[in-house]
Amino acid sequence: MPKLDLDTIPQTNATGYPAEYADVVQGRWYRRLAPASGIADFGASHVTLKPGAWSAQRHWHEGEDELVVMIAGEAVLVDDSGETAMRPGDVAAFPKNDGNGHVLQNRSSTDCVYVAIGRQSATDCHYPDIDLHLFDGEGFRRKDRSGF
Amino acid sequence: MPKLDLDTIPQTNATGYPAEYADVVQGRWYRRLAPASGIADFGASHVTLKPGAWSAQRHWHEGEDELVVMIAGEAVLVDDSGETAMRPGDVAAFPKNDGNGHVLQNRSSTDCVYVAIGRQSATDCHYPDIDLHLFDGEGFRRKDRSGF
Repeated sequence: MPKLDLDTIPQTNATGYPAEYADVVQGRWYRRLAPASGIADFGASHVTLKPGAWSAQRHWHEGEDELVVMIAGEAVLVDDSGETAMRPGDVAAFPKNDGNGHVLQNRSSTDCVYVAIGRQSATDCHYPDIDLHLFDGEGFRRKDRSGF
Repeated sequence: MPKLDLDTIPQTNATGYPAEYADVVQGRWYRRLAPASGIADFGASHVTLKPGAWSAQRHWHEGEDELVVMIAGEAVLVDDSGETAMRPGDVAAFPKNDGNGHVLQNRSSTDCVYVAIGRQSATDCHYPDIDLHLFDGEGFRRKDRSGF
């Protein structure tokens, strides 16, 4: 059946972030839709941000486009241009390698729900606000390439 | 700015269907989000189905996964398993080459809005209900390969 029974798809708040940067995503609960539904051309996550949670640390990918479709609740999109309210029906696109770090923050008192689409690629990810960098093939390091 | 100003993105109801099969998509108004936003890893369309309109003729792709995120209104998803209501927040996935033709039909009296994600590939598309087939490299033909 093409319509996904979201409640049956495993939900996790796992993160690969080093402990000192993981606090903001503890309330980010996501379901990986692609493996659950049999699609492989791109990835898709159904994400619930609990009050206070962030989608990620503010970041931009060298080699991965991202698209977000807002479904419920409200988030604040923070990027180099400032802060923008995102509400149900709103869509945001994050082109690869644009150098504009982005994050969704749920500053409200209710859950925020969205679907995020991306296509994983083995490229670096930049975190402008913190001492973190994702080095392709190595994983998360400090910007001077030292470990955590 | 990552948040898309949807009203500024051109909207069209264009279709490549032969005239005899084009009536059901005359009320399908869509915006191509990828070129407008600078992403290229996958395609995304913001679609409004006017009352009575369909997303497409019922079809399945040999080589293209599709994902739909419902934003507003209601549609009936028709596939080999029957009819399923799709409402805001619902997600449906259509894995390539599964042989299960699908279509969204707006049978309501108000607009239905969704975002559809896919990654174009040069492969055939099958239409189980009508005498139509998309032949890779040739375009739309009747199933016996004759033209319209």
